[in-house]
Amino acid sequence: MLEELKERVYEANMDLPRHGLVVFTWGNASELDRERGLFAIKPSGVSYDALRPGDMVVCDLDGRVVEGALGPSSDTPTHAWLYRAWGDRVGGIVHTHSAAAVAWAQAGRDVPAYGTTHADYFYGPVPCMRGLTRGEVEGAYELNTGKVICEGFEERGIDPAAVPAALVRSHGPFAWGSDAAEAVYHAVVVEQVAEMARDTEALSPHAGPAPQYLLDKHYLRKHGPDAYYGQHMA
Amino acid sequence: MLEELKERVYEANMDLPRHGLVVFTWGNASELDRERGLFAIKPSGVSYDALRPGDMVVCDLDGRVVEGALGPSSDTPTHAWLYRAWGDRVGGIVHTHSAAAVAWAQAGRDVPAYGTTHADYFYGPVPCMRGLTRGEVEGAYELNTGKVICEGFEERGIDPAAVPAALVRSHGPFAWGSDAAEAVYHAVVVEQVAEMARDTEALSPHAGPAPQYLLDKHYLRKHGPDAYYGQHMA
Amino acid sequence: MLEELKERVYEANMDLPRHGLVVFTWGNASELDRERGLFAIKPSGVSYDALRPGDMVVCDLDGRVVEGALGPSSDTPTHAWLYRAWGDRVGGIVHTHSAAAVAWAQAGRDVPAYGTTHADYFYGPVPCMRGLTRGEVEGAYELNTGKVICEGFEERGIDPAAVPAALVRSHGPFAWGSDAAEAVYHAVVVEQVAEMARDTEALSPHAGPAPQYLLDKHYLRKHGPDAYYGQHMA
Amino acid sequence: MLEELKERVYEANMDLPRHGLVVFTWGNASELDRERGLFAIKPSGVSYDALRPGDMVVCDLDGRVVEGALGPSSDTPTHAWLYRAWGDRVGGIVHTHSAAAVAWAQAGRDVPAYGTTHADYFYGPVPCMRGLTRGEVEGAYELNTGKVICEGFEERGIDPAAVPAALVRSHGPFAWGSDAAEAVYHAVVVEQVAEMARDTEALSPHAGPAPQYLLDKHYLRKHGPDAYYGQHMA
Repeated sequence: MLEELKERVYEANMDLPRHGLVVFTWGNASELDRERGLFAIKPSGVSYDALRPGDMVVCDLDGRVVEGALGPSSDTPTHAWLYRAWGDRVGGIVHTHSAAAVAWAQAGRDVPAYGTTHADYFYGPVPCMRGLTRGEVEGAYELNTGKVICEGFEERGIDPAAVPAALVRSHGPFAWGSDAAEAVYHAVVVEQVAEMARDTEALSPHAGPAPQYLLDKHYLRKHGPDAYYGQHMA
Repeated sequence: MLEELKERVYEANMDLPRHGLVVFTWGNASELDRERGLFAIKPSGVSYDALRPGDMVVCDLDGRVVEGALGPSSDTPTHAWLYRAWGDRVGGIVHTHSAAAVAWAQAGRDVPAYGTTHADYFYGPVPCMRGLTRGEVEGAYELNTGKVICEGFEERGIDPAAVPAALVRSHGPFAWGSDAAEAVYHAVVVEQVAEMARDTEALSPHAGPAPQYLLDKHYLRKHGPDAYYGQHMA
Repeated sequence: MLEELKERVYEANMDLPRHGLVVFTWGNASELDRERGLFAIKPSGVSYDALRPGDMVVCDLDGRVVEGALGPSSDTPTHAWLYRAWGDRVGGIVHTHSAAAVAWAQAGRDVPAYGTTHADYFYGPVPCMRGLTRGEVEGAYELNTGKVICEGFEERGIDPAAVPAALVRSHGPFAWGSDAAEAVYHAVVVEQVAEMARDTEALSPHAGPAPQYLLDKHYLRKHGPDAYYGQHMA
Repeated sequence: MLEELKERVYEANMDLPRHGLVVFTWGNASELDRERGLFAIKPSGVSYDALRPGDMVVCDLDGRVVEGALGPSSDTPTHAWLYRAWGDRVGGIVHTHSAAAVAWAQAGRDVPAYGTTHADYFYGPVPCMRGLTRGEVEGAYELNTGKVICEGFEERGIDPAAVPAALVRSHGPFAWGSDAAEAVYHAVVVEQVAEMARDTEALSPHAGPAPQYLLDKHYLRKHGPDAYYGQHMA
């Protein structure tokens, strides 16, 4: 069963360059096995060309390697913390340096919900977290990155299942979902809406978000008990 | 004959990712069979990789499914309304979330006719519709989207055959044409001119539209009885 | 020998979509046979997928068809006029609607010589022509487009061999060269420098052109008797 | 052994168009053989399609050809000077005209260290050099380009091993690394961070650099004795 998990995590990682979200090794995807309390993640600094399913590293929720010949992604403690905090709602995590989303993170700004493309997947702005303090950076940096994300969502009262991505300030996007594949999907959406929102502001510097009732409509026609988008089984 | 319609609609849908207009399932194309008063449309939320011609769903002009195992695109009532209102002039419809056009829709602005690329296909600005009211969104949303498009064209006196696209505010472009293939073509043009117009304003914030006589010339050398662009049969 | 000309013109036309300069049929390339006073050009409105070398249309310098089953590009009179005026220095012509160059044409602005990429091929700004008057547009429009280009170069004292491209106002770029292949090359350069210059202004709104001695150096190391770039035969 | 050097330099040059950094012949890569005091470099103005490993030209540190049937890149004296000055720390050099980096060079601006993507590879801004004087341009231009780069790093106290790229004013980026492959890698990074920094400023015109402790953290987790990114051998 862990072989299947590794295979899925491998595929999710390979999808990142296919979707134009990463160059070189600048990204990682993981997926949680809830029953075992373990997750599989990309090894650190291995090129996508050379990657094989068996290279995926299995870690526990403290980020310790349980299985795997290679060292795990340097961002492993961030993934571990998010699964620890949100494992009931989050089953896959992706981190990239996709260009438009990074620009928002570097600008230190939330991506506003300017339209329905955004609202179809994110129930509110994609929030930009506060910067880590010197102490947080010089200490357990990657773990603290996870803590700052959770703190940001808690303080602002955001449900990570309803807004499945965050911008880490001066760094870049993390996205998540029910599994690694959905996390990849949301990482693509973040990049798309970051690009659209950037150009919206270029065309109309004082554009406001779309009306809340429109954002509600789009989010809720895809999510929750009254969803009617896609193919539903009886 | 409906098999041929489905085949054409399938091809039109597949052309959307080929032209870079959609990612994932974010688009749909349909085509009208005028004699039967039916149209074929993409099923809802099926990925382009998995799509087959036989998956196309046949609906009547109230948007009710007449044939097909899958549920139709959630935007079906919008397509149905446009065919009902404009079926004499519109035989194919496409909806996408192409990035540059979405930025104009999110900015709530018409795409001005800055040049001949625009004028070759659109006889005037690509209009941005008014936003739907709360009541329109919370009611028959997709049907009301179609009504707002028709209302916008009527109020502004625009002929949908001469301006074969609209921006739905805070949402994105709808384009149409004599059949599904031409609707795809116009969806590509909308994205191209949206990008060009955005960059025109970056270079010259107070740029005005091209002179009307130039816009007339370009539109009319491609359309109407005096057209001389392309290959004409005697 | 005309078969070879058609073959070269066919290849030049096919290179336009390969270089991302045109979508659909929005471009054309031609090449002059100086001895015969004829040129071959792409037929009007034929898609690149369907194009064959034998489809190229041969015209005389009045733009009249001499050989070919299809109608020539609607821009044929522009090409004809440029060959008539500049045939001693220009052997190939390309017209596209490449996006960044169109934005400058729509903004009604020359592309300034901000750097060496520009200076390697263009000895001065890529000039934007004056708009055609109503009379010029309503009359022999495409012929007048050629006349306005020649007039612009003459009035500003620009040698078309040293600045092998122009922007037609509210329309788009024409580029030329010693043959069709070089005209394609210059059409690519126009798009590249249009993009770079646009972004230069975004980063530095009051950027000025590069120093003239640097522009001289780069142009002259590639062109003229003292050129030392590339492989030179003894 | 020089055959292996040529092979590596060939591959590095071929990677430039693969990464979208160059069109036509607008780039070159070289690599140093420290023991012999020789480097191999791309021949001048040969298209990438036609390039073969055996076409690489071997030069000494005065830029004189030691082996090769073709003339070396016109930028050879720049490479030679950088190896002469920095050969202990620099084993490969790449020059491109990649679009976003050129825009910064044309704007005459350093690329600020806005985030971790930048800090992962560059320990400080990517510096834009002063423009060459008329005398430097009209004299040994390419040699002087190398001298101006070295002077810029010396005056600003920048270690070329810690900031492996520079923007030559009004021209474009040079990047370097321990070998040609790493120089290519850094040339890709320069283009990525140039694009991200441009968009960061569009979103937040007064954005400042990321905090120094964050930049330190990212640079040092990848470089130096305490690095922990990637796979490390015991």
